[in-house]
Amino acid sequence: MLETLAIKSDLERFNGWRSAFKDFDIHVLDWDQVTDKSQIDYALVWDPGPGVLTEFANLKIIFSVGAGLDHLKGENILPPGIPVVRMVEDGLTAGMVEYVLYTVLRFHRFMPQYERDKQNKVWRELVQIPASKRTVGILGLGVLGGNCAKTLVQLGFNVAGWSRTPKQLPGVGCYHGAAGLDHVLAMSEILVCLLPLTHQTQHLVNAETLAKLPKGACFINAGRGACQVESDLIAALDSDHLAGAALDVYEFEPLSPKSPVWTHPKIYFTPHIASMVHPDTSAIHVYDNIVRHRNNQALTHLADMDAGY
Amino acid sequence: MLETLAIKSDLERFNGWRSAFKDFDIHVLDWDQVTDKSQIDYALVWDPGPGVLTEFANLKIIFSVGAGLDHLKGENILPPGIPVVRMVEDGLTAGMVEYVLYTVLRFHRFMPQYERDKQNKVWRELVQIPASKRTVGILGLGVLGGNCAKTLVQLGFNVAGWSRTPKQLPGVGCYHGAAGLDHVLAMSEILVCLLPLTHQTQHLVNAETLAKLPKGACFINAGRGACQVESDLIAALDSDHLAGAALDVYEFEPLSPKSPVWTHPKIYFTPHIASMVHPDTSAIHVYDNIVRHRNNQALTHLADMDAGY
Repeated sequence: MLETLAIKSDLERFNGWRSAFKDFDIHVLDWDQVTDKSQIDYALVWDPGPGVLTEFANLKIIFSVGAGLDHLKGENILPPGIPVVRMVEDGLTAGMVEYVLYTVLRFHRFMPQYERDKQNKVWRELVQIPASKRTVGILGLGVLGGNCAKTLVQLGFNVAGWSRTPKQLPGVGCYHGAAGLDHVLAMSEILVCLLPLTHQTQHLVNAETLAKLPKGACFINAGRGACQVESDLIAALDSDHLAGAALDVYEFEPLSPKSPVWTHPKIYFTPHIASMVHPDTSAIHVYDNIVRHRNNQALTHLADMDAGY
Repeated sequence: MLETLAIKSDLERFNGWRSAFKDFDIHVLDWDQVTDKSQIDYALVWDPGPGVLTEFANLKIIFSVGAGLDHLKGENILPPGIPVVRMVEDGLTAGMVEYVLYTVLRFHRFMPQYERDKQNKVWRELVQIPASKRTVGILGLGVLGGNCAKTLVQLGFNVAGWSRTPKQLPGVGCYHGAAGLDHVLAMSEILVCLLPLTHQTQHLVNAETLAKLPKGACFINAGRGACQVESDLIAALDSDHLAGAALDVYEFEPLSPKSPVWTHPKIYFTPHIASMVHPDTSAIHVYDNIVRHRNNQALTHLADMDAGY
């Protein structure tokens, strides 16, 4: 009997998902069409809310639609003992590499200054710093951070990475723990935050940590908005300790019309679009794990909900 | 006896050059300090003007300070029979790759639209197109164009390249000749011009060629300004045939205060800074050819002044 995968997505996106799974031997059902909860074998979800997944009596795997797992944290959201699989897919990774490259190059090449010069009709060549003399720090060395680091190394940047547990990446100076964080902050002219949201990372980017960056540094956040204290970040920009920021994520999304981000001249704004899950490439990853489950093989990219990612 | 290299650069840059050559067995002289022209063995020059190099009776090699050779074209500039070496150096290439990546990603990811949305306080997610479904055309497949193509291929873009003579680059659809140009234009959603300035390329990007791009295409020029007809480009932007342009070079530089470029909302402006020659990395390339000359070996990156590059 064909197993069933229930997908919690908006209608527009659901059609993309349906199409992405059409060649696989799995029955795909939109969340709103689920009548008999006991017939659902797999759930691919974003923000299911409390008391929902717990009612799926025969659930085998929960797949997260996004890279983060914060939407699955909280009381009574996850049924006990059911494996949770993180979304790791090529399209998501590629989008993040594009966003991080774009924003790093923007600051590295002083593009905000050239934009101001255009407004003032000023023709002026600024000093060009070779990538090899520019240190980019990356907080979070998972699949996204690791791939961004790799691409920046290929472009010749000096890359320093920080993660909770020790890691090794070719060409990347890898640091961990509290002392490691201070070390990475002290040398990062451009700091990229790709941390998952956990108890440890919430509000990690605050007045105290920002003060450890070199004067004139730039900050990029494409991970989770709650990892930053926006008021501290804006204070650091306004005091000229930071030269600029590129933010894709915010403490509260969508941004309130009253947020100072909208009008801040030193903040480059995007509305949480750095990277999106592409159904075509994601479906391959999801289906691969379904087949592994059927064959009693170990799942890939299993979440560790205690660690928080 | 130590040979002498005369360098035509401004004073600020000359100190960088002097320092870059300090470990090599060559005497370096600032252009303004040259008294006995017959003692100059090598010249590293930008825009020497007519009747100058022709007076250096014992000149062995002329090195161009920049990637282009248009500054060496014209009557009575080059003494006959003296080899001219183009500037091919890692720093120059790296800078160009950075600029092209930045501007391609800017258009690929619809950043100009997000910038407008920020001004209007609009939180809106735009459709994200995977790089694999985006075709970038590159006019000019020399060292700069070839390296930009390679990096874009690594990021997953579909890359089509055009050059005067047939070329082959891994992963790049390579075209040449008039029919090849039309083919590349027709499929380029983002077109990057890295052509050298020759009789054939002057004003190549004009109303007729721009009309062959798909509607909504973007144009990037980091080669030579005289390859474009700016009034045609602006007309194509104003008619919405083109969605945007990123220009680093212009028909007349520096831009006149009256140029419409300064205030055009669809033109991303930089003042000919896409790539600069870095004395440290260039000196290695120049000195390598000096040693080749001393040892009667073939020079690398010899210019073909008849072809024009």
